[in-house]
Amino acid sequence: MAPAKLRPVTSLYNNDRINAAARAAHTAGVEALLITPGADLRYLTGYDAMALERLTCLLLPAEGPVSLILPELEVRAVQDSPIPALGIAVIPWSETVDPYDLVRHVLGESLPVAPSRLAVTNHMAAEQLLSLRAALPKSEFSLAGEIIHTLRTRKSAEEIAELTAAAAAIDRVHERMAEWLLPGRTEREVARDVSNAIIDEGHASASFVIVAAGSNSASPHHVPGGQVIESGDPVVVDIGGRMPSGYCSDSTRTYAVGQPPMPFVEYYQVVYDAQQAGVAAVKPGVTAESVDAACREVIDQAGYGSFFIHRTGHGIGLQTHEEPYLVAGNQLILEPGMVFSVEPGIYLPNAHGARIEDIVACTESGVERLNTTTHSLVYL
Amino acid sequence: MAPAKLRPVTSLYNNDRINAAARAAHTAGVEALLITPGADLRYLTGYDAMALERLTCLLLPAEGPVSLILPELEVRAVQDSPIPALGIAVIPWSETVDPYDLVRHVLGESLPVAPSRLAVTNHMAAEQLLSLRAALPKSEFSLAGEIIHTLRTRKSAEEIAELTAAAAAIDRVHERMAEWLLPGRTEREVARDVSNAIIDEGHASASFVIVAAGSNSASPHHVPGGQVIESGDPVVVDIGGRMPSGYCSDSTRTYAVGQPPMPFVEYYQVVYDAQQAGVAAVKPGVTAESVDAACREVIDQAGYGSFFIHRTGHGIGLQTHEEPYLVAGNQLILEPGMVFSVEPGIYLPNAHGARIEDIVACTESGVERLNTTTHSLVYL
Repeated sequence: MAPAKLRPVTSLYNNDRINAAARAAHTAGVEALLITPGADLRYLTGYDAMALERLTCLLLPAEGPVSLILPELEVRAVQDSPIPALGIAVIPWSETVDPYDLVRHVLGESLPVAPSRLAVTNHMAAEQLLSLRAALPKSEFSLAGEIIHTLRTRKSAEEIAELTAAAAAIDRVHERMAEWLLPGRTEREVARDVSNAIIDEGHASASFVIVAAGSNSASPHHVPGGQVIESGDPVVVDIGGRMPSGYCSDSTRTYAVGQPPMPFVEYYQVVYDAQQAGVAAVKPGVTAESVDAACREVIDQAGYGSFFIHRTGHGIGLQTHEEPYLVAGNQLILEPGMVFSVEPGIYLPNAHGARIEDIVACTESGVERLNTTTHSLVYL
Repeated sequence: MAPAKLRPVTSLYNNDRINAAARAAHTAGVEALLITPGADLRYLTGYDAMALERLTCLLLPAEGPVSLILPELEVRAVQDSPIPALGIAVIPWSETVDPYDLVRHVLGESLPVAPSRLAVTNHMAAEQLLSLRAALPKSEFSLAGEIIHTLRTRKSAEEIAELTAAAAAIDRVHERMAEWLLPGRTEREVARDVSNAIIDEGHASASFVIVAAGSNSASPHHVPGGQVIESGDPVVVDIGGRMPSGYCSDSTRTYAVGQPPMPFVEYYQVVYDAQQAGVAAVKPGVTAESVDAACREVIDQAGYGSFFIHRTGHGIGLQTHEEPYLVAGNQLILEPGMVFSVEPGIYLPNAHGARIEDIVACTESGVERLNTTTHSLVYL
């Protein structure tokens, strides 16, 4: 899939995020954040860099000028991003330079004292982290996620508008499922049509397409293959994409092609009730784990507890999966602006399974569902 | 794009690779390799795991049994992989368990002494590496790439057959370019057709599609956008995919839609000559940097040296970019079985650019091109 060009959203990419990250780094006692390509870099600067083996790294000191070290051959691409308008110094390196030496050199210039505490983006590759450690042997390294994710989990009104648009786009794909989900077709054929529709309905790219038919529906992360859809099959369809803004969609609906077996129809209702209970439990001030518990209680009481084998949900934004995670043990307090999935499921091994997933936003007054297609079992 | 299921290639995934990696770890004085999802895991086990925030990790001790720690919800997926046939112990963890504690526990059981030297896969996320370091504070961590890449760069005859099939598949896409590359269409429209054709011609998925028209052809890693192709445009098309076997293709050809400007036609011939010289320089016993130098000399002598802004090539296998890298300073000695790209280019800023890329294999007697479509400028 060819990635579409990121549309720079000027209102999203001003210096507010960078300034907030610098302040948070200062508060955390970290001299600088080192951010390689991925959602953190996109969040802070709008630059949708390719994740390559060559080092691209934003150097964001708690105090002082921000710079971006990047391979010379990406200079043209960065010019099309919001980076120049943000006033970030672009420092290209040619193929025969050691970019980690360059990091040390630039950090030495931009920091008031020799760096001692540096925080790296959570997804930085081990080879980059160990190379940085070798180039900066006196520095201590921690995770920037602890600093940046606090900002990223609290979505602004503009970000929620982008996520709402993403949810509407994936809802339009679900509403067209009857065009593709037909007996005699393979999961892979359906997945390809769905993938094209994800783009037709407004996404820049499709992030993932799970079409899990019959016994494959019992595997939460099934990869669509050659299995032929048969009449009577339950089919779990879990799909998502990335909008031109960079923000993601993710929604699951379970379909019945013909008349599925009675046990399935019975526990589908349990999943439905659990998802309703989970969404109803969302409001400011409750813990992330309490939403998980609300779903799980419904499924436990119906006797299916051991078949709900994953957490209830995950945050979503510039990554499909990000904080907060709705899982037992996570006592994070939900706040207005947090956006995450509520997606309970029941999976009977070697038989079939069902899942219902909406993205919801925690609001001042409670909760808003961003996905709005029917939650009832859809018969095709 | 929906990933197609990995076809387990039984002849590729027996215990030879695991045993060779264990021996290499022993030689390197490393007690165990810790391998998270990606090309190393696929190389060793054939398991094409999704890269998620949840920890999946192969524990491969220099001596003793091999095990795979993975989230409970991936148990079904791993059963469809070669993992069970390889006799690897599968150790699932449920959502409320700390998987890093589990790693420590399993390592303690499978290692003769408390671990002190552990090597992690080069692409492991920093958050996983730092969590491992916290769980195993007495261990030293290094990169597994130094151990595994020595194996991965020397392709077997079977691997070269898979890469040859991948090259033939991408060649078939280039041969159809006249169907899509037409004046009045946008880069993005062309890229989408090419992406579909990559799959139609035998790949499981498209890895990347660069369609860079007109002045965008001066940006080596241009992302296809709304630019409309006009008569007279040079268009760089750099495309690749992943075959069902997991092995990758990557080939660039430069096209002329109508009659391009004369300066472009002149330096296209320089790129052509440089690519010929680079391929001709490949044979066992020479250094990786000597191939880069052979390309660069042709371009330098023609006066375009400052416009060849990237290295000459990269290895290819289960990753599109892997060792060996053909770059000044890399004195690695080429050996039969090494497979890599030879892809010189010339890029005139804000004007246009050209690149020609073949995947080639170093053989006992010299070199074999895996891509065989014409290297001359193709007029459409």
